[in-house]
Amino acid sequence: MNDLFGGLPDNTSPSNRDEQHEERDGLLSGRTVKLLDTTLRDGEQAPGISLTPDEKAEIAAALDRAGVAVVEAGSACTGEVERETIQRVTDLDLDARVTSFARGVRNDVDLALDCGVDGVNLVVPASDRHVEGKVGTTRDEVVETTADLVAYARDHGLWVEVIGEDGSRADLDFLERLAEAAHDAGANRFCYADTVGHAGPEHTREAVSRLADLGPTSTHTHDDLGLAVTNALASVAAGADLVHATVNGVGERAGNVALEEVAIALAHCYDVETVETTELYDLARTVADATDVALAPNKAVVGENAFAHESGIHTDGTLKDEQMYEPYPPETVGRERRLVLGKHTGRAGAKAALSEHDVEVSDDELREVVARVQDLAERNKRVTDADLLAIAEDVQGRERDRRIELRELTATSGGRIPTASVRLDVDGDERVASGTGDGPVDAAVTAVRAAVGDSDAATDFQLESYHVDAITGGTDAVVTVEVEMRRGDRSVTVASSDGDITRASVTAMVDALDRLLPADSEAETAVADD
Amino acid sequence: MNDLFGGLPDNTSPSNRDEQHEERDGLLSGRTVKLLDTTLRDGEQAPGISLTPDEKAEIAAALDRAGVAVVEAGSACTGEVERETIQRVTDLDLDARVTSFARGVRNDVDLALDCGVDGVNLVVPASDRHVEGKVGTTRDEVVETTADLVAYARDHGLWVEVIGEDGSRADLDFLERLAEAAHDAGANRFCYADTVGHAGPEHTREAVSRLADLGPTSTHTHDDLGLAVTNALASVAAGADLVHATVNGVGERAGNVALEEVAIALAHCYDVETVETTELYDLARTVADATDVALAPNKAVVGENAFAHESGIHTDGTLKDEQMYEPYPPETVGRERRLVLGKHTGRAGAKAALSEHDVEVSDDELREVVARVQDLAERNKRVTDADLLAIAEDVQGRERDRRIELRELTATSGGRIPTASVRLDVDGDERVASGTGDGPVDAAVTAVRAAVGDSDAATDFQLESYHVDAITGGTDAVVTVEVEMRRGDRSVTVASSDGDITRASVTAMVDALDRLLPADSEAETAVADD
Repeated sequence: MNDLFGGLPDNTSPSNRDEQHEERDGLLSGRTVKLLDTTLRDGEQAPGISLTPDEKAEIAAALDRAGVAVVEAGSACTGEVERETIQRVTDLDLDARVTSFARGVRNDVDLALDCGVDGVNLVVPASDRHVEGKVGTTRDEVVETTADLVAYARDHGLWVEVIGEDGSRADLDFLERLAEAAHDAGANRFCYADTVGHAGPEHTREAVSRLADLGPTSTHTHDDLGLAVTNALASVAAGADLVHATVNGVGERAGNVALEEVAIALAHCYDVETVETTELYDLARTVADATDVALAPNKAVVGENAFAHESGIHTDGTLKDEQMYEPYPPETVGRERRLVLGKHTGRAGAKAALSEHDVEVSDDELREVVARVQDLAERNKRVTDADLLAIAEDVQGRERDRRIELRELTATSGGRIPTASVRLDVDGDERVASGTGDGPVDAAVTAVRAAVGDSDAATDFQLESYHVDAITGGTDAVVTVEVEMRRGDRSVTVASSDGDITRASVTAMVDALDRLLPADSEAETAVADD
Repeated sequence: MNDLFGGLPDNTSPSNRDEQHEERDGLLSGRTVKLLDTTLRDGEQAPGISLTPDEKAEIAAALDRAGVAVVEAGSACTGEVERETIQRVTDLDLDARVTSFARGVRNDVDLALDCGVDGVNLVVPASDRHVEGKVGTTRDEVVETTADLVAYARDHGLWVEVIGEDGSRADLDFLERLAEAAHDAGANRFCYADTVGHAGPEHTREAVSRLADLGPTSTHTHDDLGLAVTNALASVAAGADLVHATVNGVGERAGNVALEEVAIALAHCYDVETVETTELYDLARTVADATDVALAPNKAVVGENAFAHESGIHTDGTLKDEQMYEPYPPETVGRERRLVLGKHTGRAGAKAALSEHDVEVSDDELREVVARVQDLAERNKRVTDADLLAIAEDVQGRERDRRIELRELTATSGGRIPTASVRLDVDGDERVASGTGDGPVDAAVTAVRAAVGDSDAATDFQLESYHVDAITGGTDAVVTVEVEMRRGDRSVTVASSDGDITRASVTAMVDALDRLLPADSEAETAVADD
C-alpha cells in the first residue's frame, strides 16, 4: 500500500504489528524530529492570555525539563516588559535554544539581541494577501529585505529561522524563491507557516516537500479546521524536522497544534521521540494554571477524562486488563487511571469503588447499589464517593449516625469584613463559632474549622480541593460546589448544589468531614485508614 | 505528487488554487460522505455526562436540522429510562435514520425493536483482546453469532451496521472475515472502529481500504493520540462513506472525533458537503449546555476564540481585509467575528473599539490609550469596555462624574432567606433598598434593582450575561465576575475581581449601569444610542 505519510512506517500498521517491538529502533533510522515551543509567543497572543515574567520563566523551565529543542520566549518588539521577560528566560541558561519572534525589520532584530537570545524567528510576508494587502510591499522587496536581515542577524551570531507568513496561501513558486534566498543568506532554516489554519494535508505535503528540498524546514500549523495535528504529521512526512507547537494548543483563534498531541502521536505511531512524554501532564497543568485556560475534560492526552472510565463495559474491561480500553498507559504521559461513577456504572466499577472505602457488599446488594447509582446519575449528573456510600448504607440497612451535622449557618458579605457563624452538632455536642475571611464562603469555612477545632474530629483534616463550576446564565443559577477532603490516607469527594454558594460550600464541606469520621466505635475498627 | 488521502484532490493545493471555483463541482464527482452522530450514545458514555429525555430529543432535532444522516439515539439495553428516551427520539419522526447501539446478543436487538428504531449498531468483538480477554469467546463463535444476529435484525426490518470493536488492534485477516460474514448475512454496512484511539493514519488507511473492498464501510475514530480527525479523513480517502462523530468531540476518554471538525475539513478542503455547516455553532451550544461540558476557548470551529482577534498585527490585518487571518468566514458555521482587547492590542483595534462607543481620539491620545490598555492587560489579563472607556477619559482629561455609585452593601446568606441591602448614590440622591434572592449575589442584585427602580436610570436595562470563571484552589481564591449589560442598542462589559463574590458581582453590575448612562446632559447628546 501507499505510505500515507511517506517515510514514516507506522507502528500501528497490521503488517508491523508482530515485529513492532523487535524493529522499534530500526524503523526510522536517521529520522530525528524536534519541537519548537511557541506557547510564550504565539500561545500568549490568544485573546485573554497574558503571562507574567515569573510565569514565563516557570513555563520555559518546564519546557526545558521536557527536552523541547527551541523555546520561543516572546516578541522583543512588543515592549519593555516583554523584553525583561525574555531576558528572564535567557538568564535561565537552558539547554534549549531561546529565541525571539521578530518582524522583518532591523530594529526588531536589535531588540532581540538586547535580550540575549540565541536566535530569532524572523517573520516575513509570503502570500500576496500579506505582501501587498497587509505590508504594502512587493515580492522582490520581501526577498531582498529577508536576505539582508538574515545576513545581519547571522553576523551578530544569531541562529535564524525565517517564517514565511501565510505560506499556506502563498504562491508556491514564490515561497520557494523566498526560502532559497533565506538559505543563501545563511538562514538556519525556513518555516512553512499555515498561519490561518487553511491547508489540507495534501497541500501541506506538497509545499513542505518542495521547501525541504531546499534546506532544513520547520512547520507551523493551526487548528481552524481541526487539522493542526494532521498537517504537522504530513509536514514531518514531507521532510520537516522541527515542529512548532504550543502546550495545550493555546494560541490565536482555534490555537496552534498541541505539543502533547504531536509528541505522543509521533512516539506511539512512529517511535519518533521528541520530548520526555512523562513530563507532558505537568507541563499541561503548569500552562493551564498560568494562562487561566482550563483544559477541556476530553482534551487528548491531558484532559481530566483522557484516562477515566465510567461505562460498565469499559470499567469491567479495564479492571480485567488495563490495556482493554487504552492505547497506551497513563504513566507514559505522567498520569494515573481513574474509574468514575455515573449513569453507565456497572457492577465491576461500583464494587471497585466501594472496596476503596472498605465496604463489602453481596451480589444482590451490589445489583441494587448499581441501579441506584445509575438512577441518581440520571437525575444529578455527578455521583460522588459520599453518594455511593450513602446508597450502600441504605441498601445494606446500616444505620449510620452522623457525627457532624450543620444546624445553622449565617454569612454576611459585601462589606469590609466578610463574617460567618455556624452552629454544628459534633458527636451530640452543640458547637457555635464564628470566623472572618476573604468572602462569605471563606468566612464560613473558617467558622466551621473553629467549631470543630478542639474536638478529636478535627485531627488532620485537609481540604484537598475546592471547585465551583463556571457560573453562566443569571445570578439565580444553581451553583455546584465539589470538595475533596482528606484525613490521613483516606479521601472523599462530596458535591452540593444550591442557589446559595455559601450554603452549598459549607454543606459539602461538613458532609465530607462527617464521611471521613468512622460511624461509631465499632466502625472505627472496620473502616481503618488504608 | 502523491495523493496523501487518495481519491480526494485537495482544494487548498497550490495546483488547484486558481481553478478552484470553476472546478468545485467536478472535483469529487460521485463522492458522497455522510455523518452518523453518536453524541447521544458514545458521547453520553463520557464520565459525568447524563442527558435527560428532553435534552436528547432537543439534540436529536438539532442534528436532524443540520442534516446528519444517522442519529444513534442510545443503547436500548441500558435500562428503562434509556428506552423511553430512545422512543422519544423515534417519535420525532426525523428525516435522519434513528438507531440504537446493541451488543451482540438477541435480547439487545429485541429491546431496540421495542423502541421503534430504524436500525441497530451491532457491536461485536474484533481484536483477540476483546474476543478472548473481554468476552471469553472464540473468533469462530463471533463470526457465527454475528451472522445469525444480522439475519435476525434484517428479518425484523432493521438497517444493520456491524461494528467490529477494537478493530484497530484486530488481526486484519480476521476483521475481513468478520466483515464478509456480516455482508453475506445482509448487513447494510461494516464499521471500522478505532475504539481506543490507537491507530495512525497509515494503519487506518490500510484497514479501511481492505474493508471497503468488501462492502459499504463506516469509520469510528477516537482522539487519544489527537488523531481522530486525521484518521476520519484517512478512512474517507480509503473508501469509507459514513463517518461516526460526536458534537464537540464529547465521548469516552479523549472523546470521539468532533462532528464540526470533520464537516468543516471535508467542506473546506475537499468540497464534500456532509451537513449544513451554518447549523454547527447552534448545535455546539445546544450540546455544551445539555452536557455541561464547556467548550475550550480554543476549540476548533466552535470555541469562543475561534474567530476572535486580539493581537495588533492580526486585528489591524483583519480590519483591512477580513480574510487576512481567517481561513473561512465565521458566517460559514453560523458565527460572528470578535475583536477583543488585551496585551497585544494595537492602535487599529483600540480605535475600532472606542468608535463602537462613539469616542474619537487623536493619534497621540490613541498611542497613550494603547500603552495603558497593554499595561492593564499585563497585570489584569482581561480588559473590558469599561476599562477602555475609563482609560480614554483619563487620557483625554475628561472629567466624568459617576451617576451611580455603590456606597454600601451587606448581604446575608447561608440561612433560609438570603437577604441583601444596598446604599447607592444615584445622581446625587441617596437610595437605600433591600432584596432577597436565591443566594447572596441574587439578593444583592435584587436590592440594586429596587434602589434604581424608580429613577430614569433604570429604564430598559438588561443583564445580558453574568459569568463567573470556575473557581479552583481554595475558598479564598479571588473570584472574577464579568457582566454584560445592555440599554437599548448599546451594551457594555465590566469585570470585577474580589475574594468576596458578592462584592465583585455588585461592583461589576453597578459600574455597568453607570457606564450605560450618558455622563451628563452634554454627553447625553454626544453619546447617543447607536
